[in-house]
Amino acid sequence: MTDADIIVLYDIPSKVGPWSPNTWKTRYSLNYKRLPFKTVWIEYPDIEPTLKAAGIISNTKPKPDGSPTWTVPAIWDPKTQTGLTESFFIAEYLDATYPDLPRLIPQGTRTLQKAWVQAFWGKLQADTQFVCPKTTWELNEPSDRYYREMILKWNGMSMEELYPKGEKRETEWKKLEMEFGEINKWFAEGSDGGPFVMGDQVSFADFALAGSILWFRVVFGKDSNEWRDITSWHDGRWGRLIAELEKYE
Amino acid sequence: MTDADIIVLYDIPSKVGPWSPNTWKTRYSLNYKRLPFKTVWIEYPDIEPTLKAAGIISNTKPKPDGSPTWTVPAIWDPKTQTGLTESFFIAEYLDATYPDLPRLIPQGTRTLQKAWVQAFWGKLQADTQFVCPKTTWELNEPSDRYYREMILKWNGMSMEELYPKGEKRETEWKKLEMEFGEINKWFAEGSDGGPFVMGDQVSFADFALAGSILWFRVVFGKDSNEWRDITSWHDGRWGRLIAELEKYE
Repeated sequence: MTDADIIVLYDIPSKVGPWSPNTWKTRYSLNYKRLPFKTVWIEYPDIEPTLKAAGIISNTKPKPDGSPTWTVPAIWDPKTQTGLTESFFIAEYLDATYPDLPRLIPQGTRTLQKAWVQAFWGKLQADTQFVCPKTTWELNEPSDRYYREMILKWNGMSMEELYPKGEKRETEWKKLEMEFGEINKWFAEGSDGGPFVMGDQVSFADFALAGSILWFRVVFGKDSNEWRDITSWHDGRWGRLIAELEKYE
Repeated sequence: MTDADIIVLYDIPSKVGPWSPNTWKTRYSLNYKRLPFKTVWIEYPDIEPTLKAAGIISNTKPKPDGSPTWTVPAIWDPKTQTGLTESFFIAEYLDATYPDLPRLIPQGTRTLQKAWVQAFWGKLQADTQFVCPKTTWELNEPSDRYYREMILKWNGMSMEELYPKGEKRETEWKKLEMEFGEINKWFAEGSDGGPFVMGDQVSFADFALAGSILWFRVVFGKDSNEWRDITSWHDGRWGRLIAELEKYE
């Protein structure tokens, strides 16, 4: 295999490594399938020109005016001369293009996996106020500026205002634990109960959830109280999930 | 088989037949498994005393003060002398108790099915203003009064105020179509794309979704414009689902 055969994964850099929960979905996906890839790091303002120049097609939900949205993860697969964005779309592409490798979306579960991503994401509301500020403080300057503006537009707050402090920090952290508790209730006890969403079988659903959890480890650090908390919640379910998936990091 | 072997399903009556999307989940589930059952009709105010007297255990989320919530569907299974509430819980009980009958929750999909119910339910916001008023107008007096009070408490509006009229009706109906459109996007085109949530395989996820759709048919009627609309949306996906599941009604 030459370098020209290797899939390219486009990701956003930081001082502490890959952090984006969305690009993690694809990073996990490629590793799970044992597809060799190299990462091309792009700062936020360079995403659009870089992906356009690479001949990548945007599969991400278009802007309200109908023009394409340029996002990562994006991949370029030299084998098929195909470039695409959006982690679920990429997962489906990889399953279709490499049918002999382990499936990301087991037969018959496509609709459930799609709904899963929205379901757990919808439960998590208290997370962004912690992880977004921590992320921006670890971004390189061009992405930092871009990311701050994006969050300011969404929240009407600067990252420093968004980040909870003092008593509020405690109540919001408790809220996050309760939100994970709601997701935890979806898991059965016993054989169907894990470590993975589909019991013993790894699937895209795990990578989607794990991406959102891993984000905390990356920006707070492995030795932080935050990471110790999260990995201990709900009988260690989230810590166990990350540990089981470590080989696909 | 004697009458004493037949499962009892507790349901709320109306002038137009069974309507509750939640009891439909269990009605479908029992029929799918071909388990003989008889319906015991209870008006809203009688649910708590009837279920308590029947020795049924509440598996529904308790009230904030920790006391049990009494809801239908509830079943009493004379074979195991077990009574329980909550459609998902009942589905799991039926799968465990009758392992030789077709499974409602295919192996490994428990967590996804649980999340599915929340995911599609969370998408549908514009539905209740149409179906709740139409329902109350078809309830018998004791349930009508009870149901009106419940909705008034939730919405701060009477059923008559809640029901959209004139131009608002059109925009809200359009909104409902768009909400179903979001759910439609979760389905793949091609082989995995239906008619069922799991492609060719019927599962509890279908019964949950179909219950919410069927509600419209029951309260608006088969020949209504509303039902014609819904069954035509998204290339007829919802109409096809209901038609495919008709044998389990």
